[in-house]
Amino acid sequence: MKLNRTNLEQRLDHLYDVIVVGGGAGGLSAGIYLQRFRLSSLIIDKGKARSSWMQSLHNYLGLPPDTSGRKLLQQGKKHYDSLAGDFLDGYVEEVTDAENIFEIQVKVGRQNSRNVKFYSKYLIVASGIIDHLLPLEDMQNVYDYAGYNLHVCMVCDGYEMTDKLCGFFAGSEASIEEMVFNLSWFTPKITIFTHGLFEVSGQMRSQLQEYGYRLVETPIQKFLGENHQMTGVELVNGSVIELETGLISMGARYHNTYLQELSLEMKGGNLVTDKLGRTSHPRIFAIGDLKVGLNQVVVAAGDGALAATQIWREIRKDIGPRKWLMNLKLPT
Amino acid sequence: MKLNRTNLEQRLDHLYDVIVVGGGAGGLSAGIYLQRFRLSSLIIDKGKARSSWMQSLHNYLGLPPDTSGRKLLQQGKKHYDSLAGDFLDGYVEEVTDAENIFEIQVKVGRQNSRNVKFYSKYLIVASGIIDHLLPLEDMQNVYDYAGYNLHVCMVCDGYEMTDKLCGFFAGSEASIEEMVFNLSWFTPKITIFTHGLFEVSGQMRSQLQEYGYRLVETPIQKFLGENHQMTGVELVNGSVIELETGLISMGARYHNTYLQELSLEMKGGNLVTDKLGRTSHPRIFAIGDLKVGLNQVVVAAGDGALAATQIWREIRKDIGPRKWLMNLKLPT
Repeated sequence: MKLNRTNLEQRLDHLYDVIVVGGGAGGLSAGIYLQRFRLSSLIIDKGKARSSWMQSLHNYLGLPPDTSGRKLLQQGKKHYDSLAGDFLDGYVEEVTDAENIFEIQVKVGRQNSRNVKFYSKYLIVASGIIDHLLPLEDMQNVYDYAGYNLHVCMVCDGYEMTDKLCGFFAGSEASIEEMVFNLSWFTPKITIFTHGLFEVSGQMRSQLQEYGYRLVETPIQKFLGENHQMTGVELVNGSVIELETGLISMGARYHNTYLQELSLEMKGGNLVTDKLGRTSHPRIFAIGDLKVGLNQVVVAAGDGALAATQIWREIRKDIGPRKWLMNLKLPT
Repeated sequence: MKLNRTNLEQRLDHLYDVIVVGGGAGGLSAGIYLQRFRLSSLIIDKGKARSSWMQSLHNYLGLPPDTSGRKLLQQGKKHYDSLAGDFLDGYVEEVTDAENIFEIQVKVGRQNSRNVKFYSKYLIVASGIIDHLLPLEDMQNVYDYAGYNLHVCMVCDGYEMTDKLCGFFAGSEASIEEMVFNLSWFTPKITIFTHGLFEVSGQMRSQLQEYGYRLVETPIQKFLGENHQMTGVELVNGSVIELETGLISMGARYHNTYLQELSLEMKGGNLVTDKLGRTSHPRIFAIGDLKVGLNQVVVAAGDGALAATQIWREIRKDIGPRKWLMNLKLPT
């Protein structure tokens, strides 16, 4: 059921089989599997899954390509709810592992918030990442275009950028190095914006020149456009650069601070897992963008199925087979 | 485009980036990604994907739980077609690898069939498996219920069997050993049918007795029921056993004979792959039920994304970045 401040008392002394941190694509897919395995699960979601920003998923098998991320998540929540899974809007602050039971500390409510604890045997971390956007004074101006024709994921939206005048909004020279030459697969008409945030080396400058990519180091004043279609940028010096699409590559925030005490194996900001999503802790699985791998909605959904199934296998083994009692003869 | 006997000439001298064998969930998801990576792909499908048997997917994130497998596949084909991917109804007979190019021999058409060859740099094998069903004289009687309340996948449909009178149709003692005790997680009311196909050991008999599971060794005459809802079986001796659901576990046929010449590493009938789906051959990826792993539609869809993305990375690296030619100054 949907938990809230008034009804969550009912669950405070319940030992869940699995608590899932994050109600995005990975977490919801895991939750659907867990409930169908007749396990007790709770999804704790802080809102704003990365996929909720996507206006069109484009590449999710089974859904028309103009389906929004929000619609996928709504359907997933409805599905999970129909299986009687518990769902709580809340912010997980800390997880500790005490004698094979996880204690999960959650802040519920933004104002007059309440701190509560939930308990589980297993943990699935599916809290994902969120992209850093261009830090303009008026952030609404960025939100107006982000997820429309101002993208954050090349694998997802490269196709839409094909041969268009593309702004590449870089957070560091490393992001230019890693992304720009790959982006040229879709379009070579690239203008790189540093927003004055970092210095570009002489070597990189000549490399960009060799490929004909433009470099703009003057900070950006605002995006131009209307109806969520970005048509260019205006710089702080008043000059205007025309664009047809854009890719923001300024890094991301990993929603993993609640895991700090657990010393899980990581690679960069990502959790290292095996093929089934198990982290270096035997009862913690990581799925979706938080783990090492490809950040794609359909992959996160598959991850959820794998982790949930493996957890079911282990719990099932612990409990053992059931007898058909009515069919057993009484001992003679 | 949709290829057929009359228009396929146009593609006989084309070197595809990737040929995908199998147009089920995995193959279609891969195809959608490949086309969005602006690669040229051909899906060759013999029809009858395993998921096309499923009346309700139940656990696929983003689709209402009563969505049929067929509907998912239709949407996927439409999606792939909208991206101008090539699709051919045909049967792949053999694949050979000559000087880094795959030659794929295909039989097109069942009657007056035509044998043609296609060529590609990479191969994705997504041809899956198909379950052996109970070999009754009147197979239509089996098809009437298979995919409704007579299931072939416990992970998919165990939830629907919860606490129901369940027939377990075994193909061997090993299948009893592997599945029955796990099935009891969902329902302990299990009647095992051997259909007289194999002997059951004394040890297994006493184990089944201990748990109260029934064992029926008399062959089955037919399933009983109406409107695709199986209500029991009639044995060849005329006796009737009431059931509310069933699970067929008689093994499966692996659609992999065309790979025989390539000596890929296998485990049982499944291809061994790395996390991205790469087999022991560097340019062959396996996805979905054909590879070692969990046989689930959403996992196959995720597999397709992973394999397609990795292939794109390699082809992209081979070809290198594009220059913005119009923006390059002429040498002075």
